Amino acid sequence: MKKIINDPADFVDEFVEGILLAHPELVKTPGEDKRILVRADAPVSGKVGIVTGGGSGHLPLFKGYVGAGLCDGVAIGNVFSSPSSAQIHEATRAVSGGAGVLYLYGNYGGDVFNFDLAADLAELDDIETRTVLGRDDVASQPRERATDRRGVAGILFAFKAAGAAAERGDDLEQVAAVAEDIIENTATMGVGLTPTILPTTGKPSFELAENEMEIGIGIHGEPGIHRGELESADAIVEHILEPLATDLSLTEGDDVAVLVNGLGATPLEELYVLYRKVHQMLSAKGITISKRYIGEYATSLEMAGASISLLKLNDERLALLNAPARSPFFQEA
Amino acid sequence: MKKIINDPADFVDEFVEGILLAHPELVKTPGEDKRILVRADAPVSGKVGIVTGGGSGHLPLFKGYVGAGLCDGVAIGNVFSSPSSAQIHEATRAVSGGAGVLYLYGNYGGDVFNFDLAADLAELDDIETRTVLGRDDVASQPRERATDRRGVAGILFAFKAAGAAAERGDDLEQVAAVAEDIIENTATMGVGLTPTILPTTGKPSFELAENEMEIGIGIHGEPGIHRGELESADAIVEHILEPLATDLSLTEGDDVAVLVNGLGATPLEELYVLYRKVHQMLSAKGITISKRYIGEYATSLEMAGASISLLKLNDERLALLNAPARSPFFQEA
Repeated sequence: MKKIINDPADFVDEFVEGILLAHPELVKTPGEDKRILVRADAPVSGKVGIVTGGGSGHLPLFKGYVGAGLCDGVAIGNVFSSPSSAQIHEATRAVSGGAGVLYLYGNYGGDVFNFDLAADLAELDDIETRTVLGRDDVASQPRERATDRRGVAGILFAFKAAGAAAERGDDLEQVAAVAEDIIENTATMGVGLTPTILPTTGKPSFELAENEMEIGIGIHGEPGIHRGELESADAIVEHILEPLATDLSLTEGDDVAVLVNGLGATPLEELYVLYRKVHQMLSAKGITISKRYIGEYATSLEMAGASISLLKLNDERLALLNAPARSPFFQEA
Repeated sequence: MKKIINDPADFVDEFVEGILLAHPELVKTPGEDKRILVRADAPVSGKVGIVTGGGSGHLPLFKGYVGAGLCDGVAIGNVFSSPSSAQIHEATRAVSGGAGVLYLYGNYGGDVFNFDLAADLAELDDIETRTVLGRDDVASQPRERATDRRGVAGILFAFKAAGAAAERGDDLEQVAAVAEDIIENTATMGVGLTPTILPTTGKPSFELAENEMEIGIGIHGEPGIHRGELESADAIVEHILEPLATDLSLTEGDDVAVLVNGLGATPLEELYVLYRKVHQMLSAKGITISKRYIGEYATSLEMAGASISLLKLNDERLALLNAPARSPFFQEA
């Protein structure tokens, strides 16, 4: 295991400390516990707060999306582990501006358990909460069971849109509805080439043979839908894009946002090779790409691989994506 | 070799095509040859043009820094190979706005040879050129032979500052002087943990044992100054930061910009663990960090490792770093 770390037990605390030292004008910790980050101007009075959270190891997800026009706070767990309900509760109190708080995070059991507990605690503080779960991984469940899907990189779209809605003054119901609308219209599928090594155990998160790839793999190495010989970039896009287009019922004349996301170790050059084929295939179907993100937005430490997300656009969704936003890791001018 | 590519021979053309398809509002190719990218509004009349270039495999370097407030054009070579003089010449013509063109690129033999040839060709077109070489790798030569140093990630500072100088209307001599000033005050050193695999040969660029690291390694795997057992993140920063501070003669009260750069496969979390120690060590010396960049700015495909660059600041240099800039991969609002 080759990692640039100190004691593995200190890994999360130390990188969070690095974020706080690097970006004091953008984020702060509201109390003693450094596992809670909120935007520097939190709470914003009268604005709906948005709290996210989840395991570490996915930067820029989740802590990278705390800032103006995005989330207001994040509770940070250990690598691939949920934060505690107490941490989520503290984040909730720190961002509450009197208009309620939306919980927006990926659909994983531990996170759901702890966010639900935190919601109960927030109720005792008279802070109203709503929950919307990222559930965009089409490989994890078919469309009929979309509410059971795992959340992966596509939650970026929901952070961006819900954050913009909160910033313009939407109320809690409206912000939750925006997030829900985005997630219902987002579909993601990934491909893994090499596993992640967990810092504390030194063990790989899954095993793949030297010539293998796994289509549909989750961001913690959850099983996908096809394991086989590594194919060409174009073939990988074909494997992934058709199910996404089917899932969103895309037809000629539709407009989409595309996210080509690197899982950690895959060079940016390779993400652009993927984007090229995505563009060609969507163009051939008469589908327009009005917004694109290409880079590392939701990683799995040093996993080699990528994911492709599509969001079916309309004017409202596109306007929300294009609204200004600023965090340590994300900027929309 | 696990890569998300098609035919390795098409790798560069395909990722450049991806960039062109993704960012038509920011960059364009001036003619038939897709190995030349220029900013979408090139040439900008009356403005000094800046042309960079070099081998592929370093994204966002070099093609990622073409845009307003940065470079005007880039000539793109094969992986780790110089572009041709004809390509550099075409880029020069495409960005020439009548105020001359600065060549700003890393100090590698093949690049120097071809840029010098292109300068001769440009002279026949009555386009005046100046050349400033990125030479920030302190591991490659001692300060007394700084003009022979290799150029690595620190050239980012020079792109940013020279681009801002050109944008505000400085003439060719002034823009070249800004670039030279930045490079003389920049020092970088890297650490490599795993090699890069070249797409066309499938061979690693160098060999390192499973428990080894190499301090001072170049971005093509050039030998460093210390090979030994992998140490902690804090120890790595100690190895690197002292030589940088000495090289720049930093003393208490000085002000610096810091770039913690990932070489490709290293997770962003680890870069923040490094930044934390950089911040602590510089603070202990009474040195202020007024600007910071943490992420992948100059990579070596999927090499695991990182580099740390320091730029000694003054008011002028900081103002140039803070001036607006916009490229597909870099934004300063």
